[in-house]
Amino acid sequence: MSKLVIVGTVAFDAIETPFGKTDKILGGAATFIGLAASYFNVDTAAVSVVGGDFPQEYLDLLSNKNIDISGIEIVKDGKTFFWSGRYHNDMNSRDTLITELNTLADFKPVVPENYKDAEVVMLGNLHPLVQTSVLDQMETKPKLAILDTMNFWMDCALDDLLNVIKRVDVITINDEEARQLTGEYSLLVAAEKIQTMGPKYVVIKKGEHGALLFHKDQAFYAPALPLKAVFDPTGAGDTFAGGFAGFLAKSNDFSYENMKNAVIFGSTLASFCVEKFGTERTQNLSNQEVHQRLLQFKDLTQFDIELA
Amino acid sequence: MSKLVIVGTVAFDAIETPFGKTDKILGGAATFIGLAASYFNVDTAAVSVVGGDFPQEYLDLLSNKNIDISGIEIVKDGKTFFWSGRYHNDMNSRDTLITELNTLADFKPVVPENYKDAEVVMLGNLHPLVQTSVLDQMETKPKLAILDTMNFWMDCALDDLLNVIKRVDVITINDEEARQLTGEYSLLVAAEKIQTMGPKYVVIKKGEHGALLFHKDQAFYAPALPLKAVFDPTGAGDTFAGGFAGFLAKSNDFSYENMKNAVIFGSTLASFCVEKFGTERTQNLSNQEVHQRLLQFKDLTQFDIELA
Repeated sequence: MSKLVIVGTVAFDAIETPFGKTDKILGGAATFIGLAASYFNVDTAAVSVVGGDFPQEYLDLLSNKNIDISGIEIVKDGKTFFWSGRYHNDMNSRDTLITELNTLADFKPVVPENYKDAEVVMLGNLHPLVQTSVLDQMETKPKLAILDTMNFWMDCALDDLLNVIKRVDVITINDEEARQLTGEYSLLVAAEKIQTMGPKYVVIKKGEHGALLFHKDQAFYAPALPLKAVFDPTGAGDTFAGGFAGFLAKSNDFSYENMKNAVIFGSTLASFCVEKFGTERTQNLSNQEVHQRLLQFKDLTQFDIELA
Repeated sequence: MSKLVIVGTVAFDAIETPFGKTDKILGGAATFIGLAASYFNVDTAAVSVVGGDFPQEYLDLLSNKNIDISGIEIVKDGKTFFWSGRYHNDMNSRDTLITELNTLADFKPVVPENYKDAEVVMLGNLHPLVQTSVLDQMETKPKLAILDTMNFWMDCALDDLLNVIKRVDVITINDEEARQLTGEYSLLVAAEKIQTMGPKYVVIKKGEHGALLFHKDQAFYAPALPLKAVFDPTGAGDTFAGGFAGFLAKSNDFSYENMKNAVIFGSTLASFCVEKFGTERTQNLSNQEVHQRLLQFKDLTQFDIELA
């Protein structure tokens, strides 16, 4: 089993969907990633920053999942990063209503001493210089560095982003972002181009259409589980990344073949995430229900054509 | 092996894509379906209508694929159905430039005598009353009736459409059409509703995002093969349907489990279709290249998580 370091936001979200709305609830990339990874019981540290307004119960929630929170700085007189958004009826697009960076504006990540030799590093969506700082603090080169990012950084910090992309093994990115980053419409060609930028593995997330894993001339496709309703997509991508990273850290096998399984685990955990608001559904997942859903993924994808 | 009857257009298409444009070339639903089904060497009859302007070489092309064309009426003084369209840069949407119904306007399908006992009937996209007429002419109830349709008939002939939907075993429909037909956004819920309308099996086509097969509470997902370029999507849905129907007719096994394989074959053949204009790529497919691509589908979808 590997140790896992996660950097990302720990935040308040306020969400409106066609199904209802929330007050400020627990959110943030590192939160979703951490909760998903905690399913695999790996030694995990979250590196982030919150304000004095951040409830102890939320920190306890992470601690109780055996996530080391000593790397979550608490700025007593600061406020926690807050995002508010409203999803459209199709749940595939959303408007950001509020973004308050607050303490995140001056965030200087500090990796806990006993995690500077972690084998797996998951760089959640943040300014690429923050992601770079985490890599710089690692005393031994991670066996697997995974980076998530978004179009915002392509628009306003492209050089920094390209510099950190150069240093990671895996990138997770959505389809439109892959197209923006490369100027290529074909995801296959986009993934080829991204591999020349550094990452040997490219994961392209397509929301309700699933996710693709690319490596050299190989491709693997994990569908999203067809669901009766997507209640709240917030955090689904991070939950996917957390499941992906957590599974790989647990199995300590970073081969392409095993990454296929990691993509399936990521999709499985993400399929739970969207069933309720925020972290509600992924806070408590039993082995049995995850196992059950993995069986659904098998039924959904496995076929039996005889090929000599 | 079962006999297969196909009804649909045999037509001229003129296509513009970002990669180029064609003059009037061979097109039409029955053409694409027939060519795809011919890969499986089943006894196939195409039921359609063309005008006196339709080249003998196109008819010969179908005949040479062992497609019985005695059900393709030739209206000597009429003109062949003509469609012209222009694809947008993303290749996922298109504008229809010209639709000339011509002989199709008065099309009265006639099923050849020796195909009135065909076990499999593939009703290509046409007015639902034309589709109904083909079912009415069958002297023995087909073991498997498959219907393809489009939003146009939902808009202007919904009652007729619902009447023919009631009588078929499988419907193939795209995602937006499934939503329009049922008023449901979730494809899972839409497929449940469609099953109450008659078809026990629902195939929802999602273009570059693959296809879903639903039956009772089961779902199966066939991705589209990631391609470097989609050169021309025209006929991909029909090629999918032809591969689906042809494989089932050949194997004579209409179980849900075997339909999964049929969906994979449909996706495989469709992946060739989009590589060149019109029928150019699917006119000549070797066993070897189809086999090779099936292996790619296996690599793309099969994983190996141990589930006790």
